Amino acid sequence: MSDNPSIVLQKIGTITLEDRPVPEISDPYYVKIAIKKTGLCGSDVHYYEHGNCGSFVVTSPMVLGHESSGIIVEVGSKVTSLKVGDKVACEPGIPSRHSYEYKSGNYNLCPEMAFAATPPYDGTLCRYYLLPEDFCVKLPDHVSLEEGALIEPLSVGTHATRLAHVTIGDSLVVFGAGPVGLLCAAAGKAFGASKVCIIDIIDEKLKFAIDNGYATHTFNSKGKSFEEIQNYILKEWDGKKPTVSMDATGNQYCIANAIQLLAKKGRYVQVGMGAPTLNGFPMAYLAENELTVKGVFRYSVDDYKIAVEMVASGKIIVKPLITHRFKFEDAVKAYEFSKEGKAIKIMIDGPE
Amino acid sequence: MSDNPSIVLQKIGTITLEDRPVPEISDPYYVKIAIKKTGLCGSDVHYYEHGNCGSFVVTSPMVLGHESSGIIVEVGSKVTSLKVGDKVACEPGIPSRHSYEYKSGNYNLCPEMAFAATPPYDGTLCRYYLLPEDFCVKLPDHVSLEEGALIEPLSVGTHATRLAHVTIGDSLVVFGAGPVGLLCAAAGKAFGASKVCIIDIIDEKLKFAIDNGYATHTFNSKGKSFEEIQNYILKEWDGKKPTVSMDATGNQYCIANAIQLLAKKGRYVQVGMGAPTLNGFPMAYLAENELTVKGVFRYSVDDYKIAVEMVASGKIIVKPLITHRFKFEDAVKAYEFSKEGKAIKIMIDGPE
Amino acid sequence: MSDNPSIVLQKIGTITLEDRPVPEISDPYYVKIAIKKTGLCGSDVHYYEHGNCGSFVVTSPMVLGHESSGIIVEVGSKVTSLKVGDKVACEPGIPSRHSYEYKSGNYNLCPEMAFAATPPYDGTLCRYYLLPEDFCVKLPDHVSLEEGALIEPLSVGTHATRLAHVTIGDSLVVFGAGPVGLLCAAAGKAFGASKVCIIDIIDEKLKFAIDNGYATHTFNSKGKSFEEIQNYILKEWDGKKPTVSMDATGNQYCIANAIQLLAKKGRYVQVGMGAPTLNGFPMAYLAENELTVKGVFRYSVDDYKIAVEMVASGKIIVKPLITHRFKFEDAVKAYEFSKEGKAIKIMIDGPE
Amino acid sequence: MSDNPSIVLQKIGTITLEDRPVPEISDPYYVKIAIKKTGLCGSDVHYYEHGNCGSFVVTSPMVLGHESSGIIVEVGSKVTSLKVGDKVACEPGIPSRHSYEYKSGNYNLCPEMAFAATPPYDGTLCRYYLLPEDFCVKLPDHVSLEEGALIEPLSVGTHATRLAHVTIGDSLVVFGAGPVGLLCAAAGKAFGASKVCIIDIIDEKLKFAIDNGYATHTFNSKGKSFEEIQNYILKEWDGKKPTVSMDATGNQYCIANAIQLLAKKGRYVQVGMGAPTLNGFPMAYLAENELTVKGVFRYSVDDYKIAVEMVASGKIIVKPLITHRFKFEDAVKAYEFSKEGKAIKIMIDGPE
Repeated sequence: MSDNPSIVLQKIGTITLEDRPVPEISDPYYVKIAIKKTGLCGSDVHYYEHGNCGSFVVTSPMVLGHESSGIIVEVGSKVTSLKVGDKVACEPGIPSRHSYEYKSGNYNLCPEMAFAATPPYDGTLCRYYLLPEDFCVKLPDHVSLEEGALIEPLSVGTHATRLAHVTIGDSLVVFGAGPVGLLCAAAGKAFGASKVCIIDIIDEKLKFAIDNGYATHTFNSKGKSFEEIQNYILKEWDGKKPTVSMDATGNQYCIANAIQLLAKKGRYVQVGMGAPTLNGFPMAYLAENELTVKGVFRYSVDDYKIAVEMVASGKIIVKPLITHRFKFEDAVKAYEFSKEGKAIKIMIDGPE
Repeated sequence: MSDNPSIVLQKIGTITLEDRPVPEISDPYYVKIAIKKTGLCGSDVHYYEHGNCGSFVVTSPMVLGHESSGIIVEVGSKVTSLKVGDKVACEPGIPSRHSYEYKSGNYNLCPEMAFAATPPYDGTLCRYYLLPEDFCVKLPDHVSLEEGALIEPLSVGTHATRLAHVTIGDSLVVFGAGPVGLLCAAAGKAFGASKVCIIDIIDEKLKFAIDNGYATHTFNSKGKSFEEIQNYILKEWDGKKPTVSMDATGNQYCIANAIQLLAKKGRYVQVGMGAPTLNGFPMAYLAENELTVKGVFRYSVDDYKIAVEMVASGKIIVKPLITHRFKFEDAVKAYEFSKEGKAIKIMIDGPE
Repeated sequence: MSDNPSIVLQKIGTITLEDRPVPEISDPYYVKIAIKKTGLCGSDVHYYEHGNCGSFVVTSPMVLGHESSGIIVEVGSKVTSLKVGDKVACEPGIPSRHSYEYKSGNYNLCPEMAFAATPPYDGTLCRYYLLPEDFCVKLPDHVSLEEGALIEPLSVGTHATRLAHVTIGDSLVVFGAGPVGLLCAAAGKAFGASKVCIIDIIDEKLKFAIDNGYATHTFNSKGKSFEEIQNYILKEWDGKKPTVSMDATGNQYCIANAIQLLAKKGRYVQVGMGAPTLNGFPMAYLAENELTVKGVFRYSVDDYKIAVEMVASGKIIVKPLITHRFKFEDAVKAYEFSKEGKAIKIMIDGPE
Repeated sequence: MSDNPSIVLQKIGTITLEDRPVPEISDPYYVKIAIKKTGLCGSDVHYYEHGNCGSFVVTSPMVLGHESSGIIVEVGSKVTSLKVGDKVACEPGIPSRHSYEYKSGNYNLCPEMAFAATPPYDGTLCRYYLLPEDFCVKLPDHVSLEEGALIEPLSVGTHATRLAHVTIGDSLVVFGAGPVGLLCAAAGKAFGASKVCIIDIIDEKLKFAIDNGYATHTFNSKGKSFEEIQNYILKEWDGKKPTVSMDATGNQYCIANAIQLLAKKGRYVQVGMGAPTLNGFPMAYLAENELTVKGVFRYSVDDYKIAVEMVASGKIIVKPLITHRFKFEDAVKAYEFSKEGKAIKIMIDGPE
């Protein structure tokens, strides 16, 4: 019997609602989740419009979606940490437990990663989805399923913040006020940075950051030079340069600016990937000031748990990120609407 | 009375032997050193030929030289660790003890650093030179003054190696087989990297690296593509990518190659500075593999001591680096000869 | 002319108000501070009652006090970061800038440390006190002088928390709810620990911790076994052991309990010193679980700044710690009152 | 058919040679190994004599042995890194790949660890043994099977050394010159400590350490006070205290001495476990000097690989540790002989 309605990208520009077989638990450490909320991510939209995302190319129909939460409806025989009825945030990438990367605490880098809605792996926009128990994080009663679906992008910001070792005493500049940039800023602030400046070219996004406590300062860099950005920071921050900066735009000018803003011994984290190579990289500044530049890729051990903890404890308020909501059967409309760029985060309900 | 013959760069292309006043100890923590050996560094030659080095410009006559060793001839009243007659390696940069950088363990980044033979500070090519006691490292009896003068470039490799956390289990690729590249390789090997490949375009330099145990592998990259370099490494190293790479060339192609050779979670260290900005920086590879890129600047706490320890214990053999020797009064000839590029390291005696 | 009224411990049990010479700035990096508020610390009281504190013994008259704030009244010729009229928290220990410990970023361990009110160095309970500019931290307008005087004990908690690397995701247990234990808990919570349990035998202190947001949980351990403490934690914390624990009692049973409560890979920090040696140290538990035990001593680079930042940003509310206030001329009464043990923190005004 | 002769501890004091069923590969990531060499460990002997080791108690017959090497005779269908005929060192503990400890890079702490010859898990003293491929490390041609069997104790020293972050610039003191203490010293020296002092009460063991390059200094502490040990170190090491110390005795006096010998910021590692609790722990010294004390438990990610690399590259010579050899059928004799305490390491051949 089949009862697993799913949002399937058939080919570029064509999404259909298709009934897929209900997946059955075969691994005793797995749980079956009734998906309830799924956030729409830029990569989903990119697959829809272009059929690819970086080096990943859609060659056969694929279920979309990877920012989800849901309710446990069945548990495997060895599952001990979850039970039917539990509300969970769903971590969408399953690494091989035999890889060296998994063994050494970096499973996000596992070469055999099966990541939801990344070809050839189906995503989470369906009724039922299977995950190992330890890739679900239980949500406390007072954390909603919508908040649970936002744990995925928050985990990206959490991972970046943890790799940058942001703590009290740090000051942070983030380029880009899309959902990931916003959540990098929010995570940096939650981890202790008392001064957080987010930089973008759209005033509404900057205002959103301030209104929700994600940043203490903002700067609209439209048409502004590096010197103008730097002068703003120095003026506002008592002449002190930031100790940490992040880029969530992938734009090479933003990246160069983010690095050159840093204080001696500063740390820069590349969150978005952008083009394969970039020009104008300020290597001499990096060398003279003994900066550290780190790449981050998705999220890894504990990031999901910590993201849930930050939401549960009120350290970060994520709900206002959701600006639009669609029913499951209107998923195509959601993708179309997304292209207009008016939403911060669109949330799609699970099937009824 | 004046008895301090000094090698003075008067202006571009003009070096003279000049008698300068003998410096006198006014700070009780200082010692007076009779300089006995000074290595000739590329930056000295650059000042001679071009009058500048990066942003530092010679505007008035300046004593050259900063890779020196000597013998203590006088000690200040609060000096406890050295006595007259001690043989020492001389650390040529004196930071401010009131700077935040000094206080936090990064004195190499002190903005008030007074570095020998960096305008406007005089260098060490003279009879007598003053240093605080803790910027001299005593040489054991069996370490020669020539080896002592080589501690300076070895400290650069030591600092790079320590910031890269090279240890047993690591494998290292170094681009550039000049003195600094060679000593980065040698330091990496001494710190435990069991596989060290040095890459250059001159076979003699590569052979030197192997002959002296500075590297286990070499590759002449003249006219070779990234893929050819990578294939060589993978073939020789059982399919394993290096965990650490360094660039001592400043060349943007070498830098891009050095980064793209790295294993996941690999660490790259920029030793030479090269141009202010560079193109073709492989940011996507860095992000996907969570690499770390670090800049290093000269050397800092403990680097000199550790460099002496490595030479004293035989972990690194530095003497063969000295390919040519000149008397103090022939210093001009040494600079002229250096321009021919035939030497690895030229050593200049102190005045008789 | 003399106009520097000072609170002097003449000998055990005898404190007098004495007029000392006004200190004059001789080092151009120093500032002169008019002391306005001084907190009374247990060590001061110990000198008063016993004439010693650990291995430090009072052999000649000594000005008491080391938890102070004040206003700059004069600056040396090289001072750049402060000006007359600035309100500052005073860091009471001046290390030698020539020590290896200072150079390597651990000035708190400097063997030549001149620490206020630690024999033979005079303390801060006087009208005028001299400090190097970088051992003063400027207080923002909205931070009061009383809060400034509390930076000293908060820096102890800050240092402990930073050495324990407490961050979001951690959970913390602190033994001892005196001022230092309270501020360790508060600092741990500010640095991100979402669960903080403070343990003591006096309910009022535990209530204070909860009322002021220093802890999320408390436990009165009077007459309770290790198992009872552990059961409480496990029950409240979903079966999870703390990742960090600290002891601020010096009591060997508390120390053993604090260590044995920890999760695998947990970190323990010894804040108070207690007896020279202790019995019942749970080494097998430490080994099997690969715990880390660290000692902390006072505070070091950046701790004072970070403590001020936490107070200024509202991350920690310190004012309620002050339960009693005395005028300068009533300092003897303050010491007498302190012996009754009714106060959390007594604050003494500067001389009028 | 059964053809798997095994050395079985039946009960305290009774070891028999028993034919066990040949184990068959059911997990496709496993390999079957023909065991060729097995070192005899103190824990094996302890089980033989006392029926327990710490909290582990033998309640049913158990195959002994866990320090083994062998040759691959069969590989599972998903094995890619090994093939039949490969010579391997065998890591004897298999953690659960679903545990949090495994996932976070600390599989040695996995609560579901199945460790060879630790009740109820059978050991390696048999003809055929199964392991996951990634718990075997391939030995290069020039590394012998006997050396392969010594990788197990060397991995203990490697793990301790890596957790202590020993590198060039460090100096090390090790208490206890049994096999583990010797290999801690040897590993510390290989990782770069230029001064290594091993302390024991038996001159022959100390001589062995010097003869084989495991240590640079030795001290026979029989009847010696802490001050005498300390004076020896200070005299020999130019007044410098060690930066790292380790205890491989479990004796509380040795532990206290090892900690009190350390320099400021020094690191102590507890290798052996000894009694559950110990007295006379020097907590005040630890606190005043901001020492770090770490427990280590067996070995974890990369330790086996690094141990093989150190032997293969000649950084450590392990063969001389083997002082006695027994045939498989004489295993009981080996156990009896071991009780006499005359051997450093006894090696038992695999069955013919």
